Amino acid sequence: MTRDEARALDAADPLRDVRERFIIPDGVIYLDGNSLGALPKATSAHLLDVVERQWGEDLITSWNKHGWIDWPQRIATRLAPIVGASPDELLIADSTSVCLFKLLAAAVAARPGRRTILTQKGNFPTDLYVAQGIADMLGCQLNAVAAEDVAGAIDEDTAVVTLTHVDYRTGAFHDMAGINARAHQAGALTLWDLSHSAGAMQLDVSGSACDLAVGCGYKYLNGGPGAPAFVFVAERLQAELRPPLQGWMGHAEPFAFDDSYRPATDIRRFLTGTPSIVALAALETGLATFEGCSLRDVEVKSQALTQLFVEAVEERFGADVELVSPRSPTERGSHVSFAHPQGYAVMQALIDRGIIGDFRAPDLMRFGFASLYNSFEDTWAAAEAMSDVLASRTWDQERFLHRQRVT
Amino acid sequence: MTRDEARALDAADPLRDVRERFIIPDGVIYLDGNSLGALPKATSAHLLDVVERQWGEDLITSWNKHGWIDWPQRIATRLAPIVGASPDELLIADSTSVCLFKLLAAAVAARPGRRTILTQKGNFPTDLYVAQGIADMLGCQLNAVAAEDVAGAIDEDTAVVTLTHVDYRTGAFHDMAGINARAHQAGALTLWDLSHSAGAMQLDVSGSACDLAVGCGYKYLNGGPGAPAFVFVAERLQAELRPPLQGWMGHAEPFAFDDSYRPATDIRRFLTGTPSIVALAALETGLATFEGCSLRDVEVKSQALTQLFVEAVEERFGADVELVSPRSPTERGSHVSFAHPQGYAVMQALIDRGIIGDFRAPDLMRFGFASLYNSFEDTWAAAEAMSDVLASRTWDQERFLHRQRVT
Repeated sequence: MTRDEARALDAADPLRDVRERFIIPDGVIYLDGNSLGALPKATSAHLLDVVERQWGEDLITSWNKHGWIDWPQRIATRLAPIVGASPDELLIADSTSVCLFKLLAAAVAARPGRRTILTQKGNFPTDLYVAQGIADMLGCQLNAVAAEDVAGAIDEDTAVVTLTHVDYRTGAFHDMAGINARAHQAGALTLWDLSHSAGAMQLDVSGSACDLAVGCGYKYLNGGPGAPAFVFVAERLQAELRPPLQGWMGHAEPFAFDDSYRPATDIRRFLTGTPSIVALAALETGLATFEGCSLRDVEVKSQALTQLFVEAVEERFGADVELVSPRSPTERGSHVSFAHPQGYAVMQALIDRGIIGDFRAPDLMRFGFASLYNSFEDTWAAAEAMSDVLASRTWDQERFLHRQRVT
Repeated sequence: MTRDEARALDAADPLRDVRERFIIPDGVIYLDGNSLGALPKATSAHLLDVVERQWGEDLITSWNKHGWIDWPQRIATRLAPIVGASPDELLIADSTSVCLFKLLAAAVAARPGRRTILTQKGNFPTDLYVAQGIADMLGCQLNAVAAEDVAGAIDEDTAVVTLTHVDYRTGAFHDMAGINARAHQAGALTLWDLSHSAGAMQLDVSGSACDLAVGCGYKYLNGGPGAPAFVFVAERLQAELRPPLQGWMGHAEPFAFDDSYRPATDIRRFLTGTPSIVALAALETGLATFEGCSLRDVEVKSQALTQLFVEAVEERFGADVELVSPRSPTERGSHVSFAHPQGYAVMQALIDRGIIGDFRAPDLMRFGFASLYNSFEDTWAAAEAMSDVLASRTWDQERFLHRQRVT
């Protein structure tokens, strides 16, 4: 493919104008929206309004006047079409880890007698840590099996199956509907971490019969670093599940200041403490970048972008790098990973050229494609740059191995 | 006292210039900094810098480049002199409720065999709800006794004593050092909620031998609506306590992406998920408003302000209102509450005149005094306004009873 051919794809892209909703620094091709989404142009003005006019001028009265008290639900309504759920099954709250804890602990308690939390080996670390903490605390066991063995491992002792939908390393994803069906057949609940899929592909959380889900606000949802997370609880389960982490925002009447906890009867019972209004405001602007976008278009474009990238890299340097993501674009999310023995150094050399992806130990170079702001031409140029780096071996191992390994 | 006499007190106030660090809307006397601190003038510019330059331009590299990864600890160093603790015993994290949960659950687990969580009746609701949730989950009991009976109720079955230092309604406070000593004598741990004391009075969390504490970032610390909370864990306990809510930010090496949880050996083990960087930035600016301020001056001024207010109100309308706060200024925190049968309506009439306090069911009018930005003249004028309202009976009960009771 030539640069002109990539440009032609951009010209035909139904999402081509959405890029204008973001600030992308000059000279940067940003392929790390799967880790931190780019800054929407509207964020600063919205934050200033919330800070200066709402907090600064209206002070405490803003909880009523500007409806702050309802923001965790109100902002979640923007998320509903992105994940395919009803607005009253969603909330914005806490961090992904805290949300995982609340839902998983509630789910285990809702299946008394069952002693197993089932997950996959190599699940995102925080998902494993949260599950392990709950297993230790409640005296049940965490069973982590290979991804392909999860469905077969669900049995009568399984309280909850907890999985990350799209693998954070390879981009492979689970058959959500299939695992939900298998779990329900066995009487188990399912808890999905949508951190690497929400906003990157077309989801139908309700239609595929998910019980519970959480997800991250700062990746494809563009809510800013450490943005609040979200929770999904299927309506049929809301009255049954009760998180042990109960705080005043989840009370049926928070401002009655009762001594006794009486959980809200709806999704609000999954709230805990007072949310950061500034953080919610930034996330709202992030979610608003999806306005008018078809999630089907987002998914189709992401498959085309990842495919372009994989083919262009492999065509030139297939022998040097190993694709660890599924080869078929319909079998992966919106990022692809290549293994390379000097992956960390290669990625740093790319970053020095303005191609920002990230690195995951031990040897993975990971490239995320955000359909809202990455173009075909970007993708083509990134593949060219990677080819150049691999060809010229311009990375400096000494230098890079001493950098702190954070990105 | 006359307005001129109040002005003379302002002229002699060592904190008089600190008010310039805040935006106080024209015509407003803000006596609700105990619920939501006023907006520091520096907040907007700091947020814009974090959003536009750090997030927008430096994107994912900011986790290293701007040290985001260390902000929960770095920003806590500004809190250390405010609460009287060592910086390495403090973290900024989550919400107060989530922090309470983490520390309380860890504390109960650290005292196996002891089955009682001891607290006071009428503790702040979220403190009670969190404790109740943990008691139910772990099969222990929550014993809530009258404030004055707490010390005497500590016994060999007490795992943890969990108290709010300053009562959110009356402003009365517990003898922190005395209860710590009594608890330690009985082998129990203590967990203090400093939400209504941090930034309002001189604290010596370390010197008074506290084990654990949490507190709120959005009241006297001026961190903005729903600002992140803080945790204090005495260094001697950090290796022993292990919160069941374990996430990747509390791992010894978060970026090793290990499958197994290995908690950090220091205070960082009390982190869980990725914090909101925008929310942390706003809190940092809030904490910075204390720069150069003596907490002793803050406390002395707050006692003088509350005393001026109480005396001025009682002098005129002592028969109509009942002071529910301790009469001695050295026995209360930085807010005072008056009971009045039409308290809600009276408070709304005050708010309509620009005197912003708040109301707590069933009949409490609560007035918080923030030494950093409330003046003696403000306080004098607020008492005058309250006298006017009480004298003229200008509140409209019908109208106000139909307002949503949130403030």
